[in-house]
Amino acid sequence: MELIINSPLDMHLHLRDADMLNKVAPLSSHSFAGAIIMPNLAPPITSLQALKEYKKRVQESIADDRFEPLMTLFFRNDYDFAFLQEAKRHISAIKLYPTGITTNSEGGVKSMDIEDLRQTFEAMSELGIPLLVHGETNGFVMDREKEFGSVYEQFAKNFPKLKIVMEHITTKHSVDLLDRYENLYATITLHHLHITLDDVAGGMLNPHLFCKPIAKRPQDKEALLRVALSANPKVMFGSDSAPHPRDKKESCGCAAGVFTAPIALQALAALFEKHGVLQNLQPFVSDNARAIYYFEPIKKEVILEKKPFFVPSSYRGVVPMFANSTLDWSIKNIT
Amino acid sequence: MELIINSPLDMHLHLRDADMLNKVAPLSSHSFAGAIIMPNLAPPITSLQALKEYKKRVQESIADDRFEPLMTLFFRNDYDFAFLQEAKRHISAIKLYPTGITTNSEGGVKSMDIEDLRQTFEAMSELGIPLLVHGETNGFVMDREKEFGSVYEQFAKNFPKLKIVMEHITTKHSVDLLDRYENLYATITLHHLHITLDDVAGGMLNPHLFCKPIAKRPQDKEALLRVALSANPKVMFGSDSAPHPRDKKESCGCAAGVFTAPIALQALAALFEKHGVLQNLQPFVSDNARAIYYFEPIKKEVILEKKPFFVPSSYRGVVPMFANSTLDWSIKNIT
Repeated sequence: MELIINSPLDMHLHLRDADMLNKVAPLSSHSFAGAIIMPNLAPPITSLQALKEYKKRVQESIADDRFEPLMTLFFRNDYDFAFLQEAKRHISAIKLYPTGITTNSEGGVKSMDIEDLRQTFEAMSELGIPLLVHGETNGFVMDREKEFGSVYEQFAKNFPKLKIVMEHITTKHSVDLLDRYENLYATITLHHLHITLDDVAGGMLNPHLFCKPIAKRPQDKEALLRVALSANPKVMFGSDSAPHPRDKKESCGCAAGVFTAPIALQALAALFEKHGVLQNLQPFVSDNARAIYYFEPIKKEVILEKKPFFVPSSYRGVVPMFANSTLDWSIKNIT
Repeated sequence: MELIINSPLDMHLHLRDADMLNKVAPLSSHSFAGAIIMPNLAPPITSLQALKEYKKRVQESIADDRFEPLMTLFFRNDYDFAFLQEAKRHISAIKLYPTGITTNSEGGVKSMDIEDLRQTFEAMSELGIPLLVHGETNGFVMDREKEFGSVYEQFAKNFPKLKIVMEHITTKHSVDLLDRYENLYATITLHHLHITLDDVAGGMLNPHLFCKPIAKRPQDKEALLRVALSANPKVMFGSDSAPHPRDKKESCGCAAGVFTAPIALQALAALFEKHGVLQNLQPFVSDNARAIYYFEPIKKEVILEKKPFFVPSSYRGVVPMFANSTLDWSIKNIT
């Protein structure tokens, strides 16, 4: 059995910088036609100069030119119309992080008061720049995303022309918001379609599945599966693939993030086939994103086949999800 | 400021066996006058022969003879009256583990149907042998203890003369059960008075605070603090101190358990003083247990003083809670 995916897109990707960039960018560029590149470097990308330089480093590190890095700025509420008008030529979106909520988010937004954000949000609305949000409060770990729901609602109601993407959603509550606000969209990761907190801490502790937002309850995972497997047009695949060196994951006080980029398409094909909805993989990993971002990707065909794929224990020192296990689907060819 | 604790007792302790026993038994015997010793060795303690041999090994490994190991059997539903009558001379309680629920519990009880347990429970009731229970289902990790609540209720209702100790409770739901059933009691650990899931997985992942039952929500911790700090007569201190070598805790797939035995009294004094209830520490760490177990411990005075105590990074390769930090209280003398 084979399945051709036209121009798969990863709408939420961490490539990091320097050595790590050189390790992981080739892997994403191999099997995807483009990806939204997260701006939370240290320091974060907040100027066009830094953005252009980072894009150049990304382009130099990729293995296949048929991969478009869709660049993003790290949100600041002092971005004004003139700056954003210029920025629009170079970016696909702007990513908002509440301060201190995840890796390299220390420079993020302190206040979610819409009056503090109005100038920038209005300019983004007018210019058609999507707002990507890491939607968590600093509350109890299992409640952080749900608590942030009221912020999403404030944003959606007060800025109806702003396209808002709830990044890497993990709860039924967030899924339900998609139906209630026309301008709310979401990315969903591979790992949140597979795991709950049980997989992280229900048996032995598994640092390789520790991520932010943390995996939630079985009913949350079911809600995510429902909209992903049905290729609901408001959801897109975004791996949130977040590489950390093995020693940073396996040492005491491990860093958050699951590395899925090189195995994502194979694992998604297996998941969608298992549920009998292989035909919905194309919209989930590409078409929905094109429609939401008004974007035409580089042409690239990834031919998947139902043939065992043994996931290696690591890719250049970075441990992937499903390491040392076998997936039912593999990549046959890329044309 | 000083506080004298008369014969402190740890009503839930893992001493393990062999090398680990030799490492940790001296630490508990130093500062406690006695402890309930858990029977979940590999294989578990299910015969009087094994129990007597284990008790001998415990006694040979302790550093202070003024420490009484209160032995327990691993529950089996084929223990009959004659066996238990003989056992009663050697044990303080019997510990029931649902199968596969924690370290070395593979031989535990498969069915919680009271008819399957009736013969043994009735004999224990008649002989006055307390039943200690690790109360978790195999459900979603945050729900396991609450789901087990109905089993506790069945046990308590159907065997009103059986003294049932809900071990290491972690939820408000379990605290509430104490008021509803006269024959339900509980032990509470040091770590569950200090941490929630946030401390395990809310920031970086902290394997040293990973334990079973997993730490729950802030409101659960508040409920535990309420009954512990007020020295509610139905609750006792039980450390559930569970040593694992550093490499087993810090490696990928870490084992469950927090090692608190050598720092428990100091940390409890600090906690009770902070809440202005130092006078309640004596009942919490000793008097309540004596009343519940009808037990008179070896006489031993532990003199605590308000003086900084730097917790070492490890005790013979086992990392304690609060490693490398300073507690406000230390042990001045033991007489």
